[in-house]
Amino acid sequence: MKIGILGATGAVGRQMIICIEEQLPEVTLKLFASKKSEGKTMKYLGKDIVVESVNEHSFDGLDYVLGAVSNQLSKTYLPWILKSKAVYIDNSSAFRMDEDVPLVVPEINGIDALHHKGIIANPNCSTIIACMALYGINHLSKIKKMVVSTYQAVSGAGLAGMQELTNQVQALARQEEVIAQTFMTQIAYNCIPMIGSPTENGYTSEEMKMQNEASKILHLDDLKVSCTCVRVGVYRSHSMSISLETEDMLEINDVKKALQQSDGVVFFEDEIPTPIDASNQDNVYVGRLRKDLVFDGYSLWCCGDQIRKGAASNAVGIIDYLIKHQTM
Amino acid sequence: MKIGILGATGAVGRQMIICIEEQLPEVTLKLFASKKSEGKTMKYLGKDIVVESVNEHSFDGLDYVLGAVSNQLSKTYLPWILKSKAVYIDNSSAFRMDEDVPLVVPEINGIDALHHKGIIANPNCSTIIACMALYGINHLSKIKKMVVSTYQAVSGAGLAGMQELTNQVQALARQEEVIAQTFMTQIAYNCIPMIGSPTENGYTSEEMKMQNEASKILHLDDLKVSCTCVRVGVYRSHSMSISLETEDMLEINDVKKALQQSDGVVFFEDEIPTPIDASNQDNVYVGRLRKDLVFDGYSLWCCGDQIRKGAASNAVGIIDYLIKHQTM
Repeated sequence: MKIGILGATGAVGRQMIICIEEQLPEVTLKLFASKKSEGKTMKYLGKDIVVESVNEHSFDGLDYVLGAVSNQLSKTYLPWILKSKAVYIDNSSAFRMDEDVPLVVPEINGIDALHHKGIIANPNCSTIIACMALYGINHLSKIKKMVVSTYQAVSGAGLAGMQELTNQVQALARQEEVIAQTFMTQIAYNCIPMIGSPTENGYTSEEMKMQNEASKILHLDDLKVSCTCVRVGVYRSHSMSISLETEDMLEINDVKKALQQSDGVVFFEDEIPTPIDASNQDNVYVGRLRKDLVFDGYSLWCCGDQIRKGAASNAVGIIDYLIKHQTM
Repeated sequence: MKIGILGATGAVGRQMIICIEEQLPEVTLKLFASKKSEGKTMKYLGKDIVVESVNEHSFDGLDYVLGAVSNQLSKTYLPWILKSKAVYIDNSSAFRMDEDVPLVVPEINGIDALHHKGIIANPNCSTIIACMALYGINHLSKIKKMVVSTYQAVSGAGLAGMQELTNQVQALARQEEVIAQTFMTQIAYNCIPMIGSPTENGYTSEEMKMQNEASKILHLDDLKVSCTCVRVGVYRSHSMSISLETEDMLEINDVKKALQQSDGVVFFEDEIPTPIDASNQDNVYVGRLRKDLVFDGYSLWCCGDQIRKGAASNAVGIIDYLIKHQTM
């Protein structure tokens, strides 16, 4: 099997290589990045692979292309990928809401991936983590509405975001001026309640992804979501506080059992999961489960590694799902 | 006028001295702390004041006592303070929900303070900041329910909390082991969704304060609140994401006007207020106002300095209110 990675030198691209090592049998890997990274080498299973820049024929002969590039680059490369007959697993948001493009979290709606037309979208990172925490509950009774507040790691802005947090903490320790380039203002020892760009209704593009993408992944046409996305000074795991209402009132023991039985979820009954606990692995941690005092439903807290389950390992998991189910 | 401060050497006690300098005419100040601080001096208006330990007659002759001590110490000292005829402004949570004890944010329900019986309670820090953001809206139409997620600063655990964040960041920079004593686990580059102690319904004591104290301050007997309290690696301002429903559906321009006209509130229509912006001053910053997608109401974000408006300056403000209104 031959797989290409677009944007291989970024935070998500690097993690994709590791996830392929961990999750798939040995493959032939091609790594693509911008002109300035051309000729660099990266390790896959101990071997050096040379990074290439992209041209119209880069994808010829590949079975899958994993994309970790901007919406704009994703749109540019799509025709070339489709022509090559490789299946494109796209981590950008460019095609996620297209009717013809499945939006997939393998544990939840892997079956949707089987009906692809050459491209499958990998969902927004916060949305993947929230949906992982929720799909077991949604299976018991449909979720009608939820209020979500996020605590999002700087890795959501890639390596540059992680470096900016480090730089700012160091600058403050030396009593030097703090420079904010990747984020709109200082993120060290701060919270920034603005991720993505503002939309007409006052919510941001990132906040509306939780409404629109969760609705598509969970097959909930009438789901209502009020989301507030906040950047915090955490390196790589996103967390969320979620209050939700289901169609039927559920017993708490049934909700616990559903969470305990959800693939890819670790449910904490008494202990308190934090984003650091959930980092560097693929499970989504869920805790603080309690009957909600406002909704006829439940409140919970969840954390998941944004670079792994929120991006790279979910995308590689889609390939794994296709391999296991397409030939059946 | 003679004022005593209980717990003068802590984070809130120190701030109380500064707030008295800023908010009140010159007073005679007595400073109290534990035996181990006895004999230390602290500055008030440039003069040294010697810190005393407490005995049964410490409060004799004082007009007001500001308390920044634990619930247990507050209960111990209350009989001595009442006997002395000083009015006790208590920052602990020991008496906040007592029917006979007014729970006061001067801008909102200062009038309740006038009916005190020797003790007035200063509310929980997050609750003060949330109520400041909400009272203008509540004045237009009663708030029925709200979902609140907090982003709480380490100063909520006093000087020890602030020092622990600094120590942990330094230890990580030196690749040394992180020691957590004040918080249950590492707070540097982390979020901890557990503040206070668990209660029977699964919410924590801190989360139930938002329900119970907001209901008392805003005079809303039927208010329903679902709150999740989360500690973040921020030094001294608490932030909150709030989704709320009012009895009547309000026009957004009326909500904006109410926020612009709320004393002690700075409303940001386009800019994004962060906890660092709101630190070291008394105003509560409100932004991200938008029509909520789940409730018939609004979503907003607010930040306020936990040590100042969340504690010290609100307590001193209660004295200021009494001085200005009691004699009328």
